[in-house]
Amino acid sequence: MVALHKEPDPLVAALREFAPVTPRMESHLEAAITQAAGETGKLIRARLAHEAARRHGLDEPEALQLACAIEYFHTASLLLDDLPCMDDAAVRRGLPCVHRVHGEATAILAALALINRAYALVGFAFADQSAAVRLQAVACVDGCLGPAGLVGGQASDLRYGETPGDARAVARIAAAKTGALFWLAVFLPALPAVADASERRDLKRLCVYWGLAFQAMDDLGDVLHRGDSAGKSSGRDRALARPNLALVLGLRGARARVSRLAALAGAAADRLAARGSRWDYLARFHAECFAPAWRVAYAATESLAAA
Amino acid sequence: MVALHKEPDPLVAALREFAPVTPRMESHLEAAITQAAGETGKLIRARLAHEAARRHGLDEPEALQLACAIEYFHTASLLLDDLPCMDDAAVRRGLPCVHRVHGEATAILAALALINRAYALVGFAFADQSAAVRLQAVACVDGCLGPAGLVGGQASDLRYGETPGDARAVARIAAAKTGALFWLAVFLPALPAVADASERRDLKRLCVYWGLAFQAMDDLGDVLHRGDSAGKSSGRDRALARPNLALVLGLRGARARVSRLAALAGAAADRLAARGSRWDYLARFHAECFAPAWRVAYAATESLAAA
Repeated sequence: MVALHKEPDPLVAALREFAPVTPRMESHLEAAITQAAGETGKLIRARLAHEAARRHGLDEPEALQLACAIEYFHTASLLLDDLPCMDDAAVRRGLPCVHRVHGEATAILAALALINRAYALVGFAFADQSAAVRLQAVACVDGCLGPAGLVGGQASDLRYGETPGDARAVARIAAAKTGALFWLAVFLPALPAVADASERRDLKRLCVYWGLAFQAMDDLGDVLHRGDSAGKSSGRDRALARPNLALVLGLRGARARVSRLAALAGAAADRLAARGSRWDYLARFHAECFAPAWRVAYAATESLAAA
Repeated sequence: MVALHKEPDPLVAALREFAPVTPRMESHLEAAITQAAGETGKLIRARLAHEAARRHGLDEPEALQLACAIEYFHTASLLLDDLPCMDDAAVRRGLPCVHRVHGEATAILAALALINRAYALVGFAFADQSAAVRLQAVACVDGCLGPAGLVGGQASDLRYGETPGDARAVARIAAAKTGALFWLAVFLPALPAVADASERRDLKRLCVYWGLAFQAMDDLGDVLHRGDSAGKSSGRDRALARPNLALVLGLRGARARVSRLAALAGAAADRLAARGSRWDYLARFHAECFAPAWRVAYAATESLAAA
């Protein structure tokens, strides 16, 4: 009976509402988009963006637009990462990957449709902002997703095996590939609120720590899980010679690194909160979303390593 | 000696300048983007957008941004269309396709980088426009490239063989797949100038005729050329069961259809020019760019069909 009383999650509802689905569209593409936009993960980036947007003065409709944009960018990157020419994954979020169900071409087109809608949502969400804020928003998205961000990080990730590197090389790729979407989720909705370069640096540092820590947890999971037990394909990094902190530093070293990144991120969030109450939500997010995820991942890696 | 006196083309220079290339980016991705942004085709859509933008009051830098955005969207669509999971082409613009040189993953990432930069250029180009115009621009890009436009048309194109249709079905796919980028090239820069719904309808009709005619010429070329003689892979439509007007109507029927579309487009351009001199450039573009292309294509198909 509990399910009957469950509050509908406005973010989940918005992800369905804004999905790029139109009447009489090609049915495989529609099914692929509906699967990708409906089977959400933990929505960490989207919830972060939503809370930041509300906190910094955007109204609920614009905050939801921005949060969905971030989530669509993220979902599209997963659709493409899973392709045979990238990570060749079979399972994602506990289901067969979109390309396994609907074919590679449809998975690529679904990703493009989500990306196209995401840029539109950013445009709508910022429509009433000043020209200065809008120009910064355009530059922010361009930088985060381009060759110095997500796309460039993914390109380096794929070529890593040609000249394998050390933990620093792995971190550089993770900062571009994973850090960029955290930066987008935190910085884009905060654009109207950031006062100066030093505040911007603090924010950036926090996002880099979060990005590196999440990627490192992902690396640990990829090494420790077997098959699809984590709801997605694992063991891909060793098989495909991809950058993975646990493969470079060992399990113990990688776990220690995540602990340290978690502490650094917590301290960065506290430092921002000390700058003014408008940054409170970052420390709260760290305590309520990041730290528990890390404790669960840590315990899981402990027991898996012992097994 | 002629080459020494050749005027540098500002649009070609802008396409290189705005290309999403950053210092120390992954080298294969950089090479792929440099190839894709450097080996331009006839730049029909970009020249159209540039002329429209200048005519409707945008300054030269913004007109170039908009023109490059349209061209990057177009180039990205070609990179993706050529992939093994789509048209599996080997040659484009007289060179081996990007995915044949740098791999599929890099071709996909290069397309994403170009698309990302294209959205940013649209944002920059419209930054000083009114909120109403900016919102229309966002909706226009979203509509043209989404499931009711380019992406949806490509999805239908790929599935056409499952339930092959008549000339009307082929036209519907061409309008979405090819017409959408003409609509974007014509309508986006004209947004500050369009007065009412009837003018908008005339513009739309012109773009649909142009889109259908260009796609039909492409269909004729695909059927008539052998191998890579046209600078790109041909014979793909029959092999892959793709929509092709010449396969549905026969050569004679398809040529007659293009003649009719060319006449309809010319009349639509004249009708717009009669509405006011600000639309002159459309009739000029039709006479100077479209009609000669059609005459060349017509002559080529005549002689190839006779051979």
